[in-house]
Amino acid sequence: MTATGPATLVEPRPQAATLAARPSAPRDASVAVVGAGDYIGGAICEKFAAEGYRVFGGRRGGEQLAPLKEKIEAAGGRFEGRSLDARQEGQVAEFIAWADADQPLEAVIFNVGANVNFPILETTERVFRKVWEMACQAGFFTGREAARRLIARGGGSIFFTGATASVRGGVGYAAFASAKAGLRAMAESMARELGPRNIHVAHLIIDAGVDTAFVRQRIVASQGEDALEFLAPDTLMNPASIANAYWMLHRQSRDGWTFELDLRPFAETW
Amino acid sequence: MTATGPATLVEPRPQAATLAARPSAPRDASVAVVGAGDYIGGAICEKFAAEGYRVFGGRRGGEQLAPLKEKIEAAGGRFEGRSLDARQEGQVAEFIAWADADQPLEAVIFNVGANVNFPILETTERVFRKVWEMACQAGFFTGREAARRLIARGGGSIFFTGATASVRGGVGYAAFASAKAGLRAMAESMARELGPRNIHVAHLIIDAGVDTAFVRQRIVASQGEDALEFLAPDTLMNPASIANAYWMLHRQSRDGWTFELDLRPFAETW
Amino acid sequence: MTATGPATLVEPRPQAATLAARPSAPRDASVAVVGAGDYIGGAICEKFAAEGYRVFGGRRGGEQLAPLKEKIEAAGGRFEGRSLDARQEGQVAEFIAWADADQPLEAVIFNVGANVNFPILETTERVFRKVWEMACQAGFFTGREAARRLIARGGGSIFFTGATASVRGGVGYAAFASAKAGLRAMAESMARELGPRNIHVAHLIIDAGVDTAFVRQRIVASQGEDALEFLAPDTLMNPASIANAYWMLHRQSRDGWTFELDLRPFAETW
Amino acid sequence: MTATGPATLVEPRPQAATLAARPSAPRDASVAVVGAGDYIGGAICEKFAAEGYRVFGGRRGGEQLAPLKEKIEAAGGRFEGRSLDARQEGQVAEFIAWADADQPLEAVIFNVGANVNFPILETTERVFRKVWEMACQAGFFTGREAARRLIARGGGSIFFTGATASVRGGVGYAAFASAKAGLRAMAESMARELGPRNIHVAHLIIDAGVDTAFVRQRIVASQGEDALEFLAPDTLMNPASIANAYWMLHRQSRDGWTFELDLRPFAETW
Repeated sequence: MTATGPATLVEPRPQAATLAARPSAPRDASVAVVGAGDYIGGAICEKFAAEGYRVFGGRRGGEQLAPLKEKIEAAGGRFEGRSLDARQEGQVAEFIAWADADQPLEAVIFNVGANVNFPILETTERVFRKVWEMACQAGFFTGREAARRLIARGGGSIFFTGATASVRGGVGYAAFASAKAGLRAMAESMARELGPRNIHVAHLIIDAGVDTAFVRQRIVASQGEDALEFLAPDTLMNPASIANAYWMLHRQSRDGWTFELDLRPFAETW
Repeated sequence: MTATGPATLVEPRPQAATLAARPSAPRDASVAVVGAGDYIGGAICEKFAAEGYRVFGGRRGGEQLAPLKEKIEAAGGRFEGRSLDARQEGQVAEFIAWADADQPLEAVIFNVGANVNFPILETTERVFRKVWEMACQAGFFTGREAARRLIARGGGSIFFTGATASVRGGVGYAAFASAKAGLRAMAESMARELGPRNIHVAHLIIDAGVDTAFVRQRIVASQGEDALEFLAPDTLMNPASIANAYWMLHRQSRDGWTFELDLRPFAETW
Repeated sequence: MTATGPATLVEPRPQAATLAARPSAPRDASVAVVGAGDYIGGAICEKFAAEGYRVFGGRRGGEQLAPLKEKIEAAGGRFEGRSLDARQEGQVAEFIAWADADQPLEAVIFNVGANVNFPILETTERVFRKVWEMACQAGFFTGREAARRLIARGGGSIFFTGATASVRGGVGYAAFASAKAGLRAMAESMARELGPRNIHVAHLIIDAGVDTAFVRQRIVASQGEDALEFLAPDTLMNPASIANAYWMLHRQSRDGWTFELDLRPFAETW
Repeated sequence: MTATGPATLVEPRPQAATLAARPSAPRDASVAVVGAGDYIGGAICEKFAAEGYRVFGGRRGGEQLAPLKEKIEAAGGRFEGRSLDARQEGQVAEFIAWADADQPLEAVIFNVGANVNFPILETTERVFRKVWEMACQAGFFTGREAARRLIARGGGSIFFTGATASVRGGVGYAAFASAKAGLRAMAESMARELGPRNIHVAHLIIDAGVDTAFVRQRIVASQGEDALEFLAPDTLMNPASIANAYWMLHRQSRDGWTFELDLRPFAETW
């Protein structure tokens, strides 16, 4: 503190991106990420790899996982990716088994999205069903298969990525909110049943826009070309911060497990 | 009040069963009930028929609707029933259109249930999907087709029957709670979108056992043959009370609409 | 339905104002309204008086109750009013006892408001405490004294008026939301404890602006003189509609009681 | 994985008690704990001291803080304690100012409890008010004074300890649930207002029994002398695990802040 006025915080709190700077020693354990997409899913893979886990990532178009694998390995981590359509029960079971084959599986994270917005009258049977298959039923497959493996291993973590729509049915979100609320209720039921079996089930509500190319395009579309230039720092969520939240959940000792937490940027209106 | 102590209530509050005693004059309007089952659904049909509406009821095994039709007609009401598999989009559209054909449709009530309980590892893809198709997707079909008709008519009511599982994922209810939470979120989204179009969407949470043969059997199974004899009055919900709640919702003036209300017996532990 | 297109609703749903048109026969029972203000509280008094109850209303500045008494009596009803500072435990006990003295008390409705908005740093101890005393502690006094009387009478209703702030702590509402959330939790605890004693405790969430002079002034202040002229019908809540909701709750048979319901106009954004 | 069957987790997840084993380098920043009691509050003090902060703890009967000070200092940390009646606005302001005087205040944690259970008719005005003063109004004082200081410092954390009663009004908890729900709503309002000012407000729901002498006595009282002997490990929450949760919240980068999370042991029924 100087004589001229109150100091600001001497030591800023951690930047999300730097938290995993030092790679941990390798662990004889694996983590599976269903929905290892370019942003949140990828960041989760990076984080758990940096913490020493062998990480298995699945997504549609598995060939798009090459840069992620390269990045993780360049940082000294271990990553295996493959194509995965999480709507296919058999594919999910196989994927989880693969991640559990050579070392004990310790955490499974479900991160498949399907955000769409349609007026109710324009919401087709196809859309309603497909959104549910991706955002809810795929989560059920993932959770059940993860439970099967983790029970055999004596415990572990199963985490689900939620959104604002998980707890709010906004205009135009009949399909998406329905699927996300369904995923959340399924997760809650699993948490109550599997907690006593030493499995930590949690549901993370992302209540804001994440910093992705898609969100940035939407900002430009609604506010003009200059909007990004004037975008205040930390007003979009960094995927790495979401990954950190999962890491924190996984580190909780079992006498104090969290089922649900929300995440949003400091300046968000909610 | 007598001299010997405080009186009890002079005039007991209404018995559910007697509320609709006097049949109203016929109205030139119809009500459709998707899931016109033996208890709640049937009671809803009776109530709206007693209030003067021409009621259209659909259920699987439509031939089982004969006694309901007979009962309603004996009381001076009008009822048409038919077989309906609410999981079939086309059947739902046709059913709603049928109810709207000869007089304006004014209310549509979705009352399809699918209560099952399985440990998560024993919850099959088939169960998870079927429960969702019945308890959630069928509600979406019903709501959307009802909206289509009611928008054309200038307004009306769309109501959905919920349960404890709509807001709580209990042990063993991964499939059922997921579907019911999904139905509720869908209804909430519809309520926000359709309210301004003069359509009252509501969701009724039945947070207790309803007086049905099935529930009575369960009581006997868990508490013995005598349990029913000693069952205190009003500790199970009368289907007619649920029907009355729907009627009250339908009667609300549009400056003060309810989206959600819960219902449980006075002595219920919750 | 005519050949030229779909008809609109033939019989519009009831106008709030006309529901109580025919006065009921007098009942040997009374209702007490704590917070018998000019709008909601007054409307509740009118409604229950129209339904045959002898109504007792209390508010600060009891002399302002004269027009209400006149209006109710002109309509054939019975009303007694007096000054009541509901923050005073003794005054509340006395008021409830007065209402219960000559005929059995059957329902007590708490309707005291204290809506204020201050930035957190400008929220004084005095404001925080006074808002709580009015919106929460007064409700506790009312509920507890009502319970005492109604238990002796064998049952009855205790209802509390809530607001959006009951379930949402918005910016500037630290004091008001805290008090309203506190009232709601107290009501929920009472509902669970008193239900089995035949007392129906309910909490009504008014999630919108009510049609009052104050709200109309605010509309003019924010949108200009003409705003009221173009105010769409039914976009503000009619106090009579709120009174009707209380009446419906009171009429519920005890095998199916509602603890909570929300109310908002059809066109409200929420 | 051995040939004889699936291995259990090779590396168990961290024990709460050992997380802060290595003391961090001292930071030029302070943390204030209002309600530095023997269990949760004390553990929070220990944790933040171990992370390098100078910790200021306040409680009634400040002389009881001597062992905590000794323990923290023996571990290489810094701690200052004093008597604090958090129901006194002036004392709270002075306490927070004291903690902020010599180095910038960075986090303030409110941890005052007041758990009581009374039937509604036996809940006196005195109990209702005192519980609120301790569990809610003291939190308001703490939050507001913390905000005042942290705004001047450019940011920081304000955390509140909640309980099951924060979100559920159970039987006999009219006073406690009312106060805790009031605290939660106040915290939510603060979070929305102060987030954009770089202040992280969070509310932690402890949904289970914490491992304290009081809870152990209750277990003996209800289940007999032997109950503790057979108490399964990790079925009571370790205060250190709660402290770890606060630490994790404080470490979140501001692009992804949590407002609320729950905590309960793995085997808890909920």
